[in-house]
Amino acid sequence: MKNFDRYKKIRSMALKKTKEKIKISYAKEEFVLIQTINAYNEVSKSYNLFFERISEWFGLYFPDIELSSINQLNLFFEGFENKEKLEVDDFYKIYEDKSKAEAIYQKYLNSSGRNLNENEKKLIMMFLKYIKNSDETLKNFDEYLKITSNKLMPNTTYLTDEKIAAELLNKAGSLEKLSIMPSSTIQLLGAEKALFKHIKFGSKPPKYGILFKLPALTNAKKTIRGKIARIYAAKISIALKGDVISKRFIAEELKNSIEKAMQKIKNKK
Amino acid sequence: MKNFDRYKKIRSMALKKTKEKIKISYAKEEFVLIQTINAYNEVSKSYNLFFERISEWFGLYFPDIELSSINQLNLFFEGFENKEKLEVDDFYKIYEDKSKAEAIYQKYLNSSGRNLNENEKKLIMMFLKYIKNSDETLKNFDEYLKITSNKLMPNTTYLTDEKIAAELLNKAGSLEKLSIMPSSTIQLLGAEKALFKHIKFGSKPPKYGILFKLPALTNAKKTIRGKIARIYAAKISIALKGDVISKRFIAEELKNSIEKAMQKIKNKK
Repeated sequence: MKNFDRYKKIRSMALKKTKEKIKISYAKEEFVLIQTINAYNEVSKSYNLFFERISEWFGLYFPDIELSSINQLNLFFEGFENKEKLEVDDFYKIYEDKSKAEAIYQKYLNSSGRNLNENEKKLIMMFLKYIKNSDETLKNFDEYLKITSNKLMPNTTYLTDEKIAAELLNKAGSLEKLSIMPSSTIQLLGAEKALFKHIKFGSKPPKYGILFKLPALTNAKKTIRGKIARIYAAKISIALKGDVISKRFIAEELKNSIEKAMQKIKNKK
Repeated sequence: MKNFDRYKKIRSMALKKTKEKIKISYAKEEFVLIQTINAYNEVSKSYNLFFERISEWFGLYFPDIELSSINQLNLFFEGFENKEKLEVDDFYKIYEDKSKAEAIYQKYLNSSGRNLNENEKKLIMMFLKYIKNSDETLKNFDEYLKITSNKLMPNTTYLTDEKIAAELLNKAGSLEKLSIMPSSTIQLLGAEKALFKHIKFGSKPPKYGILFKLPALTNAKKTIRGKIARIYAAKISIALKGDVISKRFIAEELKNSIEKAMQKIKNKK
């Protein structure tokens, strides 16, 4: 019986320890960052879908009018407040160019679309308001991403931006895992599908994953993108050591050496 | 010169006629119904995605607590208003079962999750509010769908429901096209992918498309689903003639004959 009591005691102690460990690992702020970047991506994708939908819908009523942003759509519908028809003043608010505003006002007067009745106006305005809410949600997420990426990964964020840094963290799963990844893995994070296609079927190997979102890469010529991705990945892997292990800010120097290497590539061409 | 003037006149008349025709075809209410069902589907899909995301996120703070609906999540966070910690009363509001509420309150007290700080609470509550707004948007769309499906397709809506009717219309493109479709086409609307796979690669032919959403089909045994889909499609194709061509309400009789046919199938088994 004595032995049994001892086991019981050991068991309860082990349980307590495990629970504490779980609490510590759950407590990491990086997991909130991961949730936020995922939520941001999902809302952002939906936002684009919704905007396409409302544009098409708007085209039923005004097929001749082109509105390229949610703000323009919003100004358009705000014009309807307390009146039946838009006036030329409303179009001055939507378009900066005065002569364009007048031309589109003429199109509006002779529109060949469906008449916008009260019910449908209410429905489409409700949808518009929802889409604006999506936009505000994105802005709130963005604010948190900026603060937290800079706090948890100051070096990496300095070299890239808050979204790319959070995205890298998301793909790796945790800061610890990310910080010990070789630069070649970092270079291809987010390109797993293309990588396995390459391994399995011998298609061209990918040269970059998430890093493609870097303006330095997006704007570069196709022939040197792989090189640029390699340079960035190398410096990011060092930056991550500064973020996670030594906790020092070394991004300034890293940025300088990236710029030097970029200059070299451009001169070679 | 005389001839040229005549051509000019004819041309401007033709243009005017065409514009009028465009206006008439744009003016159809069914296009608004199509936009609405598409918007509904898109928002609904996003809503599910968002709910999964916030559930996972919530699990960082309270891995031991299970909340199965957005309303429960909402009640949970409402409890935090003007105080630091939840009390047992808050849990009574969330769970109907009193003893369950108390058990989960105990779990809450000993939670092994991350501490919910003020910033993150604000962020997750903002996301929650956005998801609730998505839900309200869905309800608004639903209301319009109910009214308009019943107005434009009273017979079809009576046999199915407002969403299935609108979805059929959406797949067909217009009421006119839908009303002249043979019942076999209606039966497979929405199963185009499986149908072409069958034609091209000889896989099993599909037995139903959108009609699968009918409760009569969803709840039936697999072996008789094809038969039920055929019965419904046959009657829907007649109902559509009543909706679009003769403009009479004949759905009552059609429903009766569907029920008779269903009875026959069940007796045969």
